[in-house]
Amino acid sequence: MIRVGIVGATGYGGRELIRLLLLHADTEFVAATSTSAVGQRVDAVLPAFKTMTNVVFSDFNAQTLKETCDVVFIGVPGKESMAPVAALREAGVRVLDIGADFRLKNLDDFTKYYKADHTAAHLLEESVYGLAPWYRESLKTAQLVAVPGCYPISAVVPLRPLLDAPLSDVPVVIDSISGISGAGKSLSEGLHFPEMNENLKAYKLGMHQHIPEMEQELLHKMTVQFTPHIAPITRGILTTITLRPSETFDPTPYYACYENEPFVRVLGEGVLPDINQVRGTNFCDFGWYRDERTGNLIIVSAIDNLCGGTAGMAMQCLNIMFGLDEKTGLHLGGLLP
Amino acid sequence: MIRVGIVGATGYGGRELIRLLLLHADTEFVAATSTSAVGQRVDAVLPAFKTMTNVVFSDFNAQTLKETCDVVFIGVPGKESMAPVAALREAGVRVLDIGADFRLKNLDDFTKYYKADHTAAHLLEESVYGLAPWYRESLKTAQLVAVPGCYPISAVVPLRPLLDAPLSDVPVVIDSISGISGAGKSLSEGLHFPEMNENLKAYKLGMHQHIPEMEQELLHKMTVQFTPHIAPITRGILTTITLRPSETFDPTPYYACYENEPFVRVLGEGVLPDINQVRGTNFCDFGWYRDERTGNLIIVSAIDNLCGGTAGMAMQCLNIMFGLDEKTGLHLGGLLP
Amino acid sequence: MIRVGIVGATGYGGRELIRLLLLHADTEFVAATSTSAVGQRVDAVLPAFKTMTNVVFSDFNAQTLKETCDVVFIGVPGKESMAPVAALREAGVRVLDIGADFRLKNLDDFTKYYKADHTAAHLLEESVYGLAPWYRESLKTAQLVAVPGCYPISAVVPLRPLLDAPLSDVPVVIDSISGISGAGKSLSEGLHFPEMNENLKAYKLGMHQHIPEMEQELLHKMTVQFTPHIAPITRGILTTITLRPSETFDPTPYYACYENEPFVRVLGEGVLPDINQVRGTNFCDFGWYRDERTGNLIIVSAIDNLCGGTAGMAMQCLNIMFGLDEKTGLHLGGLLP
Amino acid sequence: MIRVGIVGATGYGGRELIRLLLLHADTEFVAATSTSAVGQRVDAVLPAFKTMTNVVFSDFNAQTLKETCDVVFIGVPGKESMAPVAALREAGVRVLDIGADFRLKNLDDFTKYYKADHTAAHLLEESVYGLAPWYRESLKTAQLVAVPGCYPISAVVPLRPLLDAPLSDVPVVIDSISGISGAGKSLSEGLHFPEMNENLKAYKLGMHQHIPEMEQELLHKMTVQFTPHIAPITRGILTTITLRPSETFDPTPYYACYENEPFVRVLGEGVLPDINQVRGTNFCDFGWYRDERTGNLIIVSAIDNLCGGTAGMAMQCLNIMFGLDEKTGLHLGGLLP
Repeated sequence: MIRVGIVGATGYGGRELIRLLLLHADTEFVAATSTSAVGQRVDAVLPAFKTMTNVVFSDFNAQTLKETCDVVFIGVPGKESMAPVAALREAGVRVLDIGADFRLKNLDDFTKYYKADHTAAHLLEESVYGLAPWYRESLKTAQLVAVPGCYPISAVVPLRPLLDAPLSDVPVVIDSISGISGAGKSLSEGLHFPEMNENLKAYKLGMHQHIPEMEQELLHKMTVQFTPHIAPITRGILTTITLRPSETFDPTPYYACYENEPFVRVLGEGVLPDINQVRGTNFCDFGWYRDERTGNLIIVSAIDNLCGGTAGMAMQCLNIMFGLDEKTGLHLGGLLP
Repeated sequence: MIRVGIVGATGYGGRELIRLLLLHADTEFVAATSTSAVGQRVDAVLPAFKTMTNVVFSDFNAQTLKETCDVVFIGVPGKESMAPVAALREAGVRVLDIGADFRLKNLDDFTKYYKADHTAAHLLEESVYGLAPWYRESLKTAQLVAVPGCYPISAVVPLRPLLDAPLSDVPVVIDSISGISGAGKSLSEGLHFPEMNENLKAYKLGMHQHIPEMEQELLHKMTVQFTPHIAPITRGILTTITLRPSETFDPTPYYACYENEPFVRVLGEGVLPDINQVRGTNFCDFGWYRDERTGNLIIVSAIDNLCGGTAGMAMQCLNIMFGLDEKTGLHLGGLLP
Repeated sequence: MIRVGIVGATGYGGRELIRLLLLHADTEFVAATSTSAVGQRVDAVLPAFKTMTNVVFSDFNAQTLKETCDVVFIGVPGKESMAPVAALREAGVRVLDIGADFRLKNLDDFTKYYKADHTAAHLLEESVYGLAPWYRESLKTAQLVAVPGCYPISAVVPLRPLLDAPLSDVPVVIDSISGISGAGKSLSEGLHFPEMNENLKAYKLGMHQHIPEMEQELLHKMTVQFTPHIAPITRGILTTITLRPSETFDPTPYYACYENEPFVRVLGEGVLPDINQVRGTNFCDFGWYRDERTGNLIIVSAIDNLCGGTAGMAMQCLNIMFGLDEKTGLHLGGLLP
Repeated sequence: MIRVGIVGATGYGGRELIRLLLLHADTEFVAATSTSAVGQRVDAVLPAFKTMTNVVFSDFNAQTLKETCDVVFIGVPGKESMAPVAALREAGVRVLDIGADFRLKNLDDFTKYYKADHTAAHLLEESVYGLAPWYRESLKTAQLVAVPGCYPISAVVPLRPLLDAPLSDVPVVIDSISGISGAGKSLSEGLHFPEMNENLKAYKLGMHQHIPEMEQELLHKMTVQFTPHIAPITRGILTTITLRPSETFDPTPYYACYENEPFVRVLGEGVLPDINQVRGTNFCDFGWYRDERTGNLIIVSAIDNLCGGTAGMAMQCLNIMFGLDEKTGLHLGGLLP
């Protein structure tokens, strides 16, 4: 039994981690820290888990977590994982951070897009970017995993195999539509139910913090024009990618690399995914269309931002880190309907 | 490994059964029949399960199912299970029917509320009503299980322990609000997205087929005034029950019977459930309020109509039938958010 | 041209008043006060009205409003209208308050249900309860109108004509389902989009402040068991009322009183309304079902809580106060879809 | 009083036309034809309009409509307006067609994208494309108006002023997200509530019939890469346009042409619209962002597909045709919330 703790377990990513841990036969959820709920039972604060766990929220203490856990997930808000990760690594604990603080290798990008200084930059070198299909070998021995962002997963999975395809240097247009859980549980007027219901918005044009993350993981071979949108659903990201080839080509052979990937489902030409088929799962599904009239290639991908885009990817990384079958605890078909 | 088949696997109940079977460590999903998809792979028809199963839809054949399955779920629409259940029982197959045909013991009620003659009435005697907390012993050896309806589960679970409480003979008012998946996948104008979105409706006042089922399982000691409503959510039933006591009483001791029930969560006085905490799960949660001003007792219960109200309850019954831990495959916390 | 001001114009009720004023041929929207937006244009704060009005938010000043307006709507949150209404009445301004402060004639009820002392109780006597079909004569000369609450409108309209019908003294069960706009624009965790989407809840059992308002307007001849619920829609209230007659009777003749009501649509026996047919309108639609098996009478009504349940009813009152055709500015059919 | 008839009044476009006609002081809704509801009252078939109109559905008869109407709207499904329009024009009736049959001037495009032969091609020459800001003069005397499609309105309004701007010849990427009412009221599995709720999809990549319409109205100076998406809302289109300038430029002066447009609201640089501010209205709102990093210009526009994208635009055209103030009957602020 792998003993697992969660730092910041009441956020949406943290709750999804608990859901997955309770399904996982080889892990035990043993500890949870919180800033707001110390001393309360997890299943009292989150009645969805009532009777399913006896864990009580405690203060964060790296040494205690070292003693009680084999691995710790970090689920705190952006820019707040630097401190606990540093403390846990100092104590020798293996860490999976579902936040953004250890994803960018370039500190200038971090400062520019997150508008903060990095207080644990010495850990960036050991940090492994937890995109399982591309970093499997490094993950086996990783001590610190930076679980990728949800938008980058939806874009990098279909794009990375195309880095050597014949593409022009026109920026790739990535228009994503996300469910609202991606914005987390902080209250804001724009996410108050009557304001967001029946609404659609684009936001953070040209300045979203996932832009440098995408470009890093596309090895700086593509310029990304990323426009995120929100729609009134809870879970899911649908990403539409418009590429301008320099000559006509068939993407199929480029995707042979995903043949044995357990959670990447290449749907092929003319077959497009929707959110239904990935809701509640760790899958990233995508298909494409080659537009003869314009010469463009359009790819559409779908993930569940909280599962395949966050907690599910994190669990897959954990399975790799501990030598388990990667599918363990992730036998999740789409919650449909 | 218990080999499981599903007759009518493309409906919403059938899909949820597949989702649960794929999570269940001690069962194997081996066969699926369909009238519309014979010869196609299940994961092609239902892309949510792509790469997760190799089962191919076949025609219904009781003898074949006898040879390949230890137990068969029936997920066909109302009034269509009589024929396949009769054939499977004839062939000696254990059957769990998530439809309504074998729930009512009184044939007149069946004819009146379902507007059909019963063609397999000889099986009603052996049919066990699959409400796990109340029929556990019979389920252990059951050959034919009639899985309860979703609305009756939400009402009978909180009401049955009160049959001996001091209640007046005023009919109990049961106002339920259901998500739309409860109406199944048959197309109708009223359930076309733009017609149902942002809408609320009451329907089938005084004539819903779950009324006699509720009264049967309340042992004809309560008269039920049941008004079902639909709201634009996919999954979930919230049931509000208004009872008129003949004298003040505390319901708490009546619910001691549920202390060890794995999927009934008695929240207590003043604590009311919502759909979030049961979505995707097998739980039935309820709490209550005693109104001193009016003398009434109001109970509010919540279930996921497709899981705890259908497929989850069916899996719990299967676990009992095969001597497994009742929680096997059902370690599902609420999908929240 | 009737010059109209709004105190508290940024709330949901206030916004709906602006929408209706801009449609109304005989009124002019001339003033708006706000605590948060003084000095800003209304159409900058509320871009839905961009280019449609030149009004700039000002501080509240009763004397200024007296000079610029023929009538003033009050749209501030609960318990905050006492002060501005008192000041405006002191200045001699006719006032329509869409809040709750001047509805209850019994001060003890106000204190008990609103948990506050009434600071302008001297105005309760002149306050006219603005339920147009029942207070038309008083409204013609009213100086202060207390526009009814949304739930009470949905319940009192169908119930008031039945006060002399043969009913038992069992409390009438009123189970309402409301859209979320009814809760206003104050942020709360429970109304954060991902928490409320796909969710259903009952709340404030036995203690909702609309209970004494309903009983007052039912002339204390009915005891009300009121349970409000919320569903994830923006606008609309569906109210299901279960009555226990003392003998069988036909409600039809009791509703003859509504024959010429412009905004009450009596659908009749067996015809039930939904939200679609009232969304965006001032209508209150209702129908009923007589259950022969139980002896009960069930009535279902539908309104748009913001229009027919608040701002539309207020505009109808204004039309009556100023001798206009009651339908002026209210030629609104259901926004469908 | 302008007497108005509607051919095909039960569809979503037709219903919205009725809603607007009932608000319009200078028109009278006098006739409605239907294939499914002949002999029934409009307000019985569409209870949202109950008590608001006495019109009874009749069979289509061009001569009768000629006698009773000054102008007729056509609201029938795609490819079905050719016949009634031809008959009405033959009879000398002025016609506004909210369908697609008379928008494309190029018959090959019509055949290719609509997969049908045009049976009334002789009328294409007199047909005026009803995009009010660009065809105002022609509309004044128009006998046949082809009301634009919803997606083209959302794209052509912001793009047409830029035809002479310094743009590269890279295809413009137009990714739109539409509410479901745009798909009309025909039932399909994909639009069944539980299938579409919480779902997102891209569809008809590279082959949507609005592509040639957009390119025609961009005077064939832009190549359009159009990808439509659907999201689970009822009304609204949000369109995100990515343009590749050949040199840096400020769009502001190009939009001076819209300064006096009553229903185009140019929000400016860095101000982006959402659906809330246009729901139920005839407005087209847009703003933009210039991305210094990539050199691209991104424009985001919002309309209500049924009002500003169909029936509202049609009413504005009618106002122009009959010499009325263009805003008559369209004083509609956003239904917010």
